[in-house]
Amino acid sequence: MTLEILSIGNELLSGHTINSNASKISQALLPHGFSVDKVTLLPDEVSLLKKGIEEAMERATFIITTGGLGPTGDDLTRDVVAEIFNTSLVRDEAVANDLIKRFGENLPTLEDQALVPKGATIIPNPLGTAPGFILQGKATVLVLPGVPSQMEAMLLGVIAYLEKHHTKSHYVASLYLSLLSEQQVDPYLRGLEKENPGIDIGICPGYGVLSVYVHGKDPTIISSIRDQVAKKFETHVFSTSNKLIEVAFHDWMVNHQKTFAAAESCTGGHLAARLTEHAGSSDYFLGSIVSYSNHLKETALTVSQKTLETDGAVSEAVVLEMVAGAQKLTGADYVIATSGVAGPSGGTPEKPIGTVWTAIRTPEKTYTGLIPLKKSIKSRALVIEYTVTYLLASLYRHLVHNIEPYT
Amino acid sequence: MTLEILSIGNELLSGHTINSNASKISQALLPHGFSVDKVTLLPDEVSLLKKGIEEAMERATFIITTGGLGPTGDDLTRDVVAEIFNTSLVRDEAVANDLIKRFGENLPTLEDQALVPKGATIIPNPLGTAPGFILQGKATVLVLPGVPSQMEAMLLGVIAYLEKHHTKSHYVASLYLSLLSEQQVDPYLRGLEKENPGIDIGICPGYGVLSVYVHGKDPTIISSIRDQVAKKFETHVFSTSNKLIEVAFHDWMVNHQKTFAAAESCTGGHLAARLTEHAGSSDYFLGSIVSYSNHLKETALTVSQKTLETDGAVSEAVVLEMVAGAQKLTGADYVIATSGVAGPSGGTPEKPIGTVWTAIRTPEKTYTGLIPLKKSIKSRALVIEYTVTYLLASLYRHLVHNIEPYT
Repeated sequence: MTLEILSIGNELLSGHTINSNASKISQALLPHGFSVDKVTLLPDEVSLLKKGIEEAMERATFIITTGGLGPTGDDLTRDVVAEIFNTSLVRDEAVANDLIKRFGENLPTLEDQALVPKGATIIPNPLGTAPGFILQGKATVLVLPGVPSQMEAMLLGVIAYLEKHHTKSHYVASLYLSLLSEQQVDPYLRGLEKENPGIDIGICPGYGVLSVYVHGKDPTIISSIRDQVAKKFETHVFSTSNKLIEVAFHDWMVNHQKTFAAAESCTGGHLAARLTEHAGSSDYFLGSIVSYSNHLKETALTVSQKTLETDGAVSEAVVLEMVAGAQKLTGADYVIATSGVAGPSGGTPEKPIGTVWTAIRTPEKTYTGLIPLKKSIKSRALVIEYTVTYLLASLYRHLVHNIEPYT
Repeated sequence: MTLEILSIGNELLSGHTINSNASKISQALLPHGFSVDKVTLLPDEVSLLKKGIEEAMERATFIITTGGLGPTGDDLTRDVVAEIFNTSLVRDEAVANDLIKRFGENLPTLEDQALVPKGATIIPNPLGTAPGFILQGKATVLVLPGVPSQMEAMLLGVIAYLEKHHTKSHYVASLYLSLLSEQQVDPYLRGLEKENPGIDIGICPGYGVLSVYVHGKDPTIISSIRDQVAKKFETHVFSTSNKLIEVAFHDWMVNHQKTFAAAESCTGGHLAARLTEHAGSSDYFLGSIVSYSNHLKETALTVSQKTLETDGAVSEAVVLEMVAGAQKLTGADYVIATSGVAGPSGGTPEKPIGTVWTAIRTPEKTYTGLIPLKKSIKSRALVIEYTVTYLLASLYRHLVHNIEPYT
């Protein structure tokens, strides 16, 4: 089978909205054995939209569209799909009743949003007003709204439909590693590919993490190859299901009933933000003192004015005082502190952009070190992202494998 | 002219990487009068890649590809493009010398990365090892690497090339509004479209902000229509160039030499993170106390234990004490505090998920209020995002237009 995604909307083509829906769908389908063969972005324009859908129907077995289902004038998907299937729009009583139940009789768009192509199977939209639907012809077209939360809420229905109507033929086993470069892992993976015909191994570098995907037709074989990779790089493995190091860190902290806090200068709240994105983080995360000014480093973290003057804010001495101050204020078991030059300005010959002093405090010992930034990490955002990932990965590796941070 | 983007890489189709490159390119080209007609994601597979590029060459004048230029086995773009143009790969001395200069004689991938298709125009890659290049045939193909920072660094060269080889025919004027719903703005825009044939006005809702794009063939006319929209919604306009409210806020603070700080509970560092993403934020942003635990609210912000016990952490009384505590600790001119139930758990009948108490403190007065969350905002991430946007927009509107927050 082949499966294509059509992401519909001028805001996607203009770049004003990033097409997160397509990657959400792909990620949701992959563990169920469905891989996406092509993604195409199409505009809100009748003839181009019609052509794009018809072209995809020539190529694919299943087509998932997102976007263009709302009640405004530039929402065209429903009408265009109905035209392609040579059918008309009819009022669906179940949809209308559900809309009345959730939004009341006076919903201004009720009569419009209750219309669906005749003969379509409805995919209920539990959050919004536009129902999704499925039509079968030369290809099966599954039509979803473009609002990400609504689309996501409807994905289980899509997966159930696909599983009912198609047998799986492709499986993926994933593995996530930290504190390794692509060059340290890739040759080993290519060797495994040569030894195992019919297996594909993809590697996807992040900043501080590597994602490895083993693709094949037999779920037992790909799992066994994934396990070989995991054994080879044992102390670097942090997950087989989630590429975010903060999720592995979160789980460890919660499972071990430990607490964590931070004192952030150059990372500016990004460490806290990455942890608190995940529900339940308040079970272990006590907080972060984002001390962007020297004054706040003194008042909240009791960093001494003298150290700031003699060593400068970006120094080993200051992160040592920051980490101690945050521990005292929060009482956390584990604490991380950061102070650096994220750029693009602020660099000096002694402390160029990318100089990031950090400290990791455990109940036994405090470790300090500079973040080993790769040459390719040049932007402010990447310095921050890499610093946070490096520190969480280092502390996680220390906790799980007892390997000293910064080594 | 027509312009298509081909985003190449299995990690894009599998959804493990979001295709941010395509939207970056679209956004960069649009102000220069170039709009993207289609975006297609293609896999790292020779025959599908070749077919995808050839199909695009049938349709488009210009094709920009990203990805598949690295030295590893699954990087196929360069070879496939050379094959399509019926040319061979040759060593480019200028590229080789540049690589030696930046990475040294011993770069292991030197001989591979110095190869480019014969007859191609080079687009230098100042950050990485894979050069970009341009080949002209039935269509002009511009080939860029997939690493976002490298691709972005090469976009100016792409724009210069397009401007030299094509006359503009399409212009866009943009406008960004806050604290309005799509329904409050859309009817007015449709009226303007009717009055002005040949003009298209797009509206793109974010969470707390609206982006309005006026498209047309005459730059004077679209600017004048944009100005009409701006006048109509005057106190809601925060930019004509950047859809991030934090950038307008940043500029106002820096220009007025004022300082800002925060005390965050439910927003968990996301307010600080959004401000510190922007270079120069240390000129006005003093810091944020991310007090995720009640204990830290007491120790750092001097919130009283009694208030926490009687009113609960999510209450007007607590955000009042938080905002006062943060002001005292930082000395900031303006301070914001947040405490709420972001979900997905932690809700109660009295304080359901989405209950977010906040305070905005100015030198004159402290305002408090609940965040007016729309029904469509259901996830933890959206509660946090909308809260941050709402507060920054409310304070900005107060500063610029003297409109009281929470009204």
